[in-house]
Amino acid sequence: MSQLLGTRAHANSTVVERLRASDPVLVDILPAGEAIPGMTATTILTSGVPLSWEDYYGGQRRAILSAAVYERLAVSLEEADHKIQAGEIQVAFTHDHGCVGSVAGIYTASMPVFVVEDRQHGNRAFCNFYEGESRYRLNYGSYDESVRDGLLFLQHELAPVLQDAVRRSGGIELKPLIGRALRMGDELHSRNTAATSLFLRELVPHLLAMSAEGDLARVTTALNFLQASDYFFLRLSMAAAKASADAADGVPGSSVVTAMTISCREFAIRVSGLPGQWFRGSLPQADAKLFDGFTMDDMEWIGGESLIAETVGLGAFAQAAAFGLQAYQGGDAQAMVAMNESMYAITVSEHDTYLIPYFGFRGVPLGIDIHRVVDSGIVPLIDGGLTGKAGGQIGAGVLSAPMDCFVAARSAYAAAYPQHES
Amino acid sequence: MSQLLGTRAHANSTVVERLRASDPVLVDILPAGEAIPGMTATTILTSGVPLSWEDYYGGQRRAILSAAVYERLAVSLEEADHKIQAGEIQVAFTHDHGCVGSVAGIYTASMPVFVVEDRQHGNRAFCNFYEGESRYRLNYGSYDESVRDGLLFLQHELAPVLQDAVRRSGGIELKPLIGRALRMGDELHSRNTAATSLFLRELVPHLLAMSAEGDLARVTTALNFLQASDYFFLRLSMAAAKASADAADGVPGSSVVTAMTISCREFAIRVSGLPGQWFRGSLPQADAKLFDGFTMDDMEWIGGESLIAETVGLGAFAQAAAFGLQAYQGGDAQAMVAMNESMYAITVSEHDTYLIPYFGFRGVPLGIDIHRVVDSGIVPLIDGGLTGKAGGQIGAGVLSAPMDCFVAARSAYAAAYPQHES
Repeated sequence: MSQLLGTRAHANSTVVERLRASDPVLVDILPAGEAIPGMTATTILTSGVPLSWEDYYGGQRRAILSAAVYERLAVSLEEADHKIQAGEIQVAFTHDHGCVGSVAGIYTASMPVFVVEDRQHGNRAFCNFYEGESRYRLNYGSYDESVRDGLLFLQHELAPVLQDAVRRSGGIELKPLIGRALRMGDELHSRNTAATSLFLRELVPHLLAMSAEGDLARVTTALNFLQASDYFFLRLSMAAAKASADAADGVPGSSVVTAMTISCREFAIRVSGLPGQWFRGSLPQADAKLFDGFTMDDMEWIGGESLIAETVGLGAFAQAAAFGLQAYQGGDAQAMVAMNESMYAITVSEHDTYLIPYFGFRGVPLGIDIHRVVDSGIVPLIDGGLTGKAGGQIGAGVLSAPMDCFVAARSAYAAAYPQHES
Repeated sequence: MSQLLGTRAHANSTVVERLRASDPVLVDILPAGEAIPGMTATTILTSGVPLSWEDYYGGQRRAILSAAVYERLAVSLEEADHKIQAGEIQVAFTHDHGCVGSVAGIYTASMPVFVVEDRQHGNRAFCNFYEGESRYRLNYGSYDESVRDGLLFLQHELAPVLQDAVRRSGGIELKPLIGRALRMGDELHSRNTAATSLFLRELVPHLLAMSAEGDLARVTTALNFLQASDYFFLRLSMAAAKASADAADGVPGSSVVTAMTISCREFAIRVSGLPGQWFRGSLPQADAKLFDGFTMDDMEWIGGESLIAETVGLGAFAQAAAFGLQAYQGGDAQAMVAMNESMYAITVSEHDTYLIPYFGFRGVPLGIDIHRVVDSGIVPLIDGGLTGKAGGQIGAGVLSAPMDCFVAARSAYAAAYPQHES
């Protein structure tokens, strides 16, 4: 039996090795329709394992319909609804296209995306752009003229400047930036302040050259947005994590989670040794700090996949690197330390480059094992933003993944690998 | 008696209010000889309460003599020695000229300095530039062709670019940068990584404009130095702290420390209510992490005034904001927390803007009180770099200030303010 267990352990260690060795590099910025395999002019990507169209409700449904209007696929939410029902507009799953969605996770073909390549394993992942500091953003289910103008700014003013700078750079290695940001108070999910600054530092030499060539005005406009957007790096952290997690997917015999996703109705996970399957469960529990004037009754789930960060050991798995988060999501340092420590009980290993100073530079807990989750009764914790029923962000907090999808995954694992079960 | 005690408490609270209200702004960069009152072409400033010339030994003496050669006041160390003895070159005390010295703290007239103005109180303070990442630097008692070339680079290539950018900015407020860096893993003495990045961010718009006007090459050269110099901000942190501490000096009845200084022979402190006096004591104890190959036998004191940071609640007084420091100066997070907490026992208050995330955003301990130090037996702790006998940095660690100068200061305080003693 120890040999059989050894086989699972061996598979899991292969997964962890791939996660560690992954070398995500920002190689380009392109329109989603150009960069993303299978993305057509009429595709809208959204977070979460696909539901039938009538099951999308609230902010996620509104975000999808608004995206169709934004993309000029429909002139009204009603027309968008009809066209989706008629199959003229296709609602598709981010993860099926190498993407991860922040909150509702809305992608249309014209939106710029970060193209991140794992130079170690050759695969690519994508993420679209942070919309800025307003609480009202398309990915939070809000859409009006100012949201639209913001999205057009990203597409027409910000993306071309960043594309030029990134191409001049020959690619920006994200792993060193993430490792360094962990020593500067970020956990790369709900806090990206340092990483955004470090990313900007990488761009500066190229922005200077562009200014020298006559581009000062548009470079300054782009810079002003970056300087005011402490969360900007989140989408790069997500694309990097997705690239790493995808590289670790599909290892036979492994019981390590390679993605977690939320729709307005469900939480779901994917397991490396059970590729192509999503194990669906109930929505997470949230321990939240809400912005002034809101209560938990105002909250609504509208999806989310930024928890790809936790899948690779960041976010709540690195909370003890980011005590500044208390101001945003509540809690205290001792609770953050305890939560972070508890994640070592459900992971198979630790990262070798993503380190937590408070823990004496111990590596972040890496590789969520469905067996350890079920056996310990400890579920993954997730740093996350919370959405209001009327759209917009209403707070932030720590989410607890539901146990049911881990139980379901473990049953499927037992069926697929009876010889690897103890 | 409570009324009399109240008088001291009132004076101390005035001091702390001044420290809190202080608003240090980088307003210019100028040659030391131009910016610093009383600095002549033949003045050399060094750290520590003045000694007679024959009492300077080792690295501090070597640094002073080398500075004379660097400044072309002498062609050799021997000639410099003669000229100092003859009074043709004047060795003077940094603090007497509004300056603070890093380690040996050597200033000559041609060296560029940061000009920091406390916009709240109107006073100015100065600090010269970080020499770069080499262990061998003039302020660590080293001098050769590469040290000289580095100093010339600061003067002729870096300073003009920064001067131009700072003047375009209209002044760079340092308080918000310091406050923010504390949330990003710096304690602003032995760790300045985030602050250096944040300072660079402030410069970027102006560097872009300068590039657009044809200055790309020299801007890029300056940028490359800044990007490679994580300690760059230390000198700004020091100048800001000196400006704040000077604004809090000279409050009658106050028993709060407004400066601490080290020469090759002594530690000394200054107390707000006893202006113009320095209370001298023995050298600090060092709990050090040495670079590979060195032992404590290799260590030599050559001066230091970067502990102005601790005087205003930074450095070791904010260690729990900077767990990343372990890699540099040893120790562990728990010890850092305990050391930081112990500093609240010897301070009269806390800062309102400089906050420690790990302590739930508690303000840093502010205002070292000579009574509390003597009564508690707890001395101020100091993050610091350590110097080798052969010159150069050989490690870093936590220094403990000597008790004797606090005892001496307290005696002087009792003599000056018999009515304020309990």
